[in-house]
Amino acid sequence: MIRFQCDYAEGAHPLILKKMEETNYEQTVGYGNDPYCESARQKIRAACKAPEADVHFLVGGTQANFTVISSVLRPHQGVVSAVTGHINAHETGAVEATGHKVLTLPSDDGKITAAQVRELYEAHWSDSDHEHVVQPGMVYISHPTENGTLYSKEELEEMYAVCRELGLPLFMDGARMGYGLMSQTSTLTLADIAGLTDVFYIGGTKVGALFGEAVVITNPVLKKDFRYLIKQNGGMLAKGRLLGIQFDTLFTDGLYYDISKYADELAMRLKEAFVKKGYGLRYDSYSNQQFPILPNDHMEKLKEKYSFGFWEKTDEEHTAVRFCTSWATKEENVQALIADIEAL
Amino acid sequence: MIRFQCDYAEGAHPLILKKMEETNYEQTVGYGNDPYCESARQKIRAACKAPEADVHFLVGGTQANFTVISSVLRPHQGVVSAVTGHINAHETGAVEATGHKVLTLPSDDGKITAAQVRELYEAHWSDSDHEHVVQPGMVYISHPTENGTLYSKEELEEMYAVCRELGLPLFMDGARMGYGLMSQTSTLTLADIAGLTDVFYIGGTKVGALFGEAVVITNPVLKKDFRYLIKQNGGMLAKGRLLGIQFDTLFTDGLYYDISKYADELAMRLKEAFVKKGYGLRYDSYSNQQFPILPNDHMEKLKEKYSFGFWEKTDEEHTAVRFCTSWATKEENVQALIADIEAL
Amino acid sequence: MIRFQCDYAEGAHPLILKKMEETNYEQTVGYGNDPYCESARQKIRAACKAPEADVHFLVGGTQANFTVISSVLRPHQGVVSAVTGHINAHETGAVEATGHKVLTLPSDDGKITAAQVRELYEAHWSDSDHEHVVQPGMVYISHPTENGTLYSKEELEEMYAVCRELGLPLFMDGARMGYGLMSQTSTLTLADIAGLTDVFYIGGTKVGALFGEAVVITNPVLKKDFRYLIKQNGGMLAKGRLLGIQFDTLFTDGLYYDISKYADELAMRLKEAFVKKGYGLRYDSYSNQQFPILPNDHMEKLKEKYSFGFWEKTDEEHTAVRFCTSWATKEENVQALIADIEAL
Amino acid sequence: MIRFQCDYAEGAHPLILKKMEETNYEQTVGYGNDPYCESARQKIRAACKAPEADVHFLVGGTQANFTVISSVLRPHQGVVSAVTGHINAHETGAVEATGHKVLTLPSDDGKITAAQVRELYEAHWSDSDHEHVVQPGMVYISHPTENGTLYSKEELEEMYAVCRELGLPLFMDGARMGYGLMSQTSTLTLADIAGLTDVFYIGGTKVGALFGEAVVITNPVLKKDFRYLIKQNGGMLAKGRLLGIQFDTLFTDGLYYDISKYADELAMRLKEAFVKKGYGLRYDSYSNQQFPILPNDHMEKLKEKYSFGFWEKTDEEHTAVRFCTSWATKEENVQALIADIEAL
Repeated sequence: MIRFQCDYAEGAHPLILKKMEETNYEQTVGYGNDPYCESARQKIRAACKAPEADVHFLVGGTQANFTVISSVLRPHQGVVSAVTGHINAHETGAVEATGHKVLTLPSDDGKITAAQVRELYEAHWSDSDHEHVVQPGMVYISHPTENGTLYSKEELEEMYAVCRELGLPLFMDGARMGYGLMSQTSTLTLADIAGLTDVFYIGGTKVGALFGEAVVITNPVLKKDFRYLIKQNGGMLAKGRLLGIQFDTLFTDGLYYDISKYADELAMRLKEAFVKKGYGLRYDSYSNQQFPILPNDHMEKLKEKYSFGFWEKTDEEHTAVRFCTSWATKEENVQALIADIEAL
Repeated sequence: MIRFQCDYAEGAHPLILKKMEETNYEQTVGYGNDPYCESARQKIRAACKAPEADVHFLVGGTQANFTVISSVLRPHQGVVSAVTGHINAHETGAVEATGHKVLTLPSDDGKITAAQVRELYEAHWSDSDHEHVVQPGMVYISHPTENGTLYSKEELEEMYAVCRELGLPLFMDGARMGYGLMSQTSTLTLADIAGLTDVFYIGGTKVGALFGEAVVITNPVLKKDFRYLIKQNGGMLAKGRLLGIQFDTLFTDGLYYDISKYADELAMRLKEAFVKKGYGLRYDSYSNQQFPILPNDHMEKLKEKYSFGFWEKTDEEHTAVRFCTSWATKEENVQALIADIEAL
Repeated sequence: MIRFQCDYAEGAHPLILKKMEETNYEQTVGYGNDPYCESARQKIRAACKAPEADVHFLVGGTQANFTVISSVLRPHQGVVSAVTGHINAHETGAVEATGHKVLTLPSDDGKITAAQVRELYEAHWSDSDHEHVVQPGMVYISHPTENGTLYSKEELEEMYAVCRELGLPLFMDGARMGYGLMSQTSTLTLADIAGLTDVFYIGGTKVGALFGEAVVITNPVLKKDFRYLIKQNGGMLAKGRLLGIQFDTLFTDGLYYDISKYADELAMRLKEAFVKKGYGLRYDSYSNQQFPILPNDHMEKLKEKYSFGFWEKTDEEHTAVRFCTSWATKEENVQALIADIEAL
Repeated sequence: MIRFQCDYAEGAHPLILKKMEETNYEQTVGYGNDPYCESARQKIRAACKAPEADVHFLVGGTQANFTVISSVLRPHQGVVSAVTGHINAHETGAVEATGHKVLTLPSDDGKITAAQVRELYEAHWSDSDHEHVVQPGMVYISHPTENGTLYSKEELEEMYAVCRELGLPLFMDGARMGYGLMSQTSTLTLADIAGLTDVFYIGGTKVGALFGEAVVITNPVLKKDFRYLIKQNGGMLAKGRLLGIQFDTLFTDGLYYDISKYADELAMRLKEAFVKKGYGLRYDSYSNQQFPILPNDHMEKLKEKYSFGFWEKTDEEHTAVRFCTSWATKEENVQALIADIEAL
């Protein structure tokens, strides 16, 4: 079985494992206060052109999401998100478990707009009974989205301008950040993102690391006491250096970008093959997730050899599915898949 | 600086790293449903002589504690713990953050007794206003305790008998389980523990793994839907096999026991040196944590070369401190420390 | 200003005030354990033909809703509700504040169907990643709904059958219960409701009392320790007898029914006047809330003399609004309003 | 049975009932935005000499406590309280249910000192692992305490100075405020309290009202969005004017003070009788709660005719109990009790 089901089917980039092995018997202090974490923080700040940013390493994405969100909101506030947002759809209510409602906006492609946020905000405050309704307290977006789509620089500028005007901190979930940054259609750099959000994270789990997400807080108001919250929410790794070593490696010599670009290019080759074959695309993605709409018989045939994700039935005879590439995807497997598609 | 400060200063046992490297490019499903996790689960069930037990792998101890506790309690219930219990003292209120009070019992050495639990229970139910008071809903103990002390088989039998009689599930935090099992004074096996608790965990982070705690649920009532709770609490590792690989390795050929025994033996050598030097012992520990009471000038001298933990001032001229050994402690460092103590 | 804005603009039925005055200097025990509460409980059990039911008195509806819901659900579960349900739309996220997501179903008129519940349930359990999604744990309906609509006996039977089949406790919010029971279209008695739900409440605040909601728990599984939860959630009135006195009075000599019927009849006269005038109706309500769609100029004219609720703009020139009657509405005011409408 | 068991055995001061009756058919807006609430707010601001204070009316004390506390704290913070504090001992973990630990200080008489608060604060911040421990975020005191004792003006000045220095908002639970203010030993006025705390409440339930607590927020930082939190926590009474009417009446012509003074004087007569009889006093209270230590046979004898609260056994032959007077206590009952004590 060749897996295109997700972007976390393998381990880690070999340079990371190598570094872990080399440093295995070094003794360091715990909880992220070691030199590897410090070095990784410096490299991330540099990559973000945000020398004042706080950088924290958490183990996983759900944890990063609810830790950030619950650190920002007061009890009566909710987080605005696309209805398709990971926090709303795929985290077992982790945000609600911290006491906060997810205020959903409709979305066709996983993105939401500045205009939608403004409209929701104004609807809240113009309601004479607004004290009976959850107050919008921050905005969550993912980039790339769960549908592989990307915010343009202009869209993010608009979103951030509205968020600042309305006093809503903007939080970007970057679980697949690398694949967004290196997309051929990307108009955003890491520095742009750092400048156009209040807090975001750079995903490691899906982009070369064994695990780990680097939360970057640029808004000084949101920095206070964040380490307490990591600890309280179970995200403070005892051997914190494991996170430092991984991000230090990823942000050395452009590794994070290179491996992301590699995955994106393979995804584009898949996309080309789907289009050439005449398949529709559920979302027009230029990052590592691709969503072709397959005739059901083609889907069944491909399942014999490949694993991929069910997305939704689009009609009786077609099904949208998800194929992911990653830093670890073998080119030969992509070639085999393309050949098999052509042969259908 | 030679570190005796904690038992998580190094990485992982080399067999674990080796296995991670060997399997790095294998593709597996995520979230703990892979064959490595399955194999590790089987080995742990066998070691526990609990073929029906559910075994789950979580990343860290705080996470394991609050995930288990909040899965057991109803909203008006609290968890009974020694005042010194990790959940009460060192987890930034993670249990309270899930909505539950920690009901503390005094303890001189980190242990609590069956009689104390009964007394607290009876005090609650005999209070005519008991509905105005948090109801005891389960019991938490750690083994070894935060003070290095151990429950005897008889003590655990008594505790479990009382817990069953009173309908209070018994949960054992085994962050340092290995060091307890292999202590020269231990009267408990893993199978004993599985038979005398409702849920417990086997610590990996402090006993040879990079990270990871294996939660073992023997009480069928507590098994239901536990994976939802892991996910909601941010403890479901995407690359779950990393946890499987580690525990599979630790529970192959007795590795977990061997490395624990090694650490305990080094701790006993340290203890002997402390006693020989005439130092008092804050707690009479036979596991990997040792708590000598040092004259302040000795403490300052040792600090120049060794790191160790401050525990408490016992009088103006003496301080109790903590030295930890672990699977990774080098024998030569113990020898050096002993020599330096003798020379003081 | 004559108020039709809500059904809680006045105080209480005079018989309630009279009883409060008569008993003012009696000394009773607190917290709902007094003879008045006991008498009210007996009368409610009799009215429900549910001699085994537990009956508890809480101060208000939001409190009753989140106390019941959080007492039923485990942490990873959510409550299924119409998107228009009070718990989702107008309680400032009180349910989420207890840690639970509201799982919303679309609704045109405030009601949801058994088929919708089944579909949501099956969608959850057929999702291979269901552990990453909030599990449906119970169903919430309101009767009458926030839109004045009513469940028929057949609809409630279907809903309850599905809920029992799927293991989802069914909870009915009866903040306006009386107005539903006495509607000319009602096919449900209080005994029917007690037999076709697991827990529900009988609203006092909007139906003759100063305040107070009587929670009736018929499912034995849900009874346990409910008083602890009332106390923890701030709903246990020290002078609990005030709730007992009110419900005892309301359930003596059919007062609750009589005053509800009176309000419904006035509402029907209003509805008739709206229809006669040619206004559309946003919802086809046969209970005490009426939702005419007014030409904007008519609306502005009526506002000079009457208060009523804004509901939504239906087009540029029309607005749906809400008029409520209650036990306290004066017939002369209804006549005046009807005359003013006719004169427009 | 003559009840001295608590201070909420009767209804309300007759002037309150009278006003409720007079206004019963008036139509007002709901949720505390009516003219009665506004009038009561103005009178309370005047009584507090705090023209800028926000005043909110909640139904009960537990609700007021957890609503205030959870509005102030961030998730990783706890509230400092005497171990005997109502929030720690008698509210079924309501504070923990909002996610926050109660950080307890030992207390002999229900009071805590500025020095204790400073010590706890310094212990927290000097702990090198303080991020692993709940951060003190505010201070809770009750006045009178649960033991009837009172803070002097000097003590409160010291406490508030320390709280301001350390950045810890000071919250006073005034469930029995009136009985404290009018005690013969009181050195605090309402204006003093408003000037020496950040937020406090004036108890109505135990001092003449049917129910209700007036929360006064003087610290501007704590005012924001408080009404959302009242609603979310189930404390926003639909017929909010009932609270306004009660507090408006209590703060007209000094009623609140007069009825409190009356109860205190009766309590002093009881105290005198206890002392004269040679009974010890568990706490030296000068407010409406009295805690004599009775020989067990005397206690049993008195129980035949009077109800009073069990406090604790002081030795095999003696028991500390609680007698409460209130605004509603009949002088003749106090005389009867005194005569019966003398006759023992």
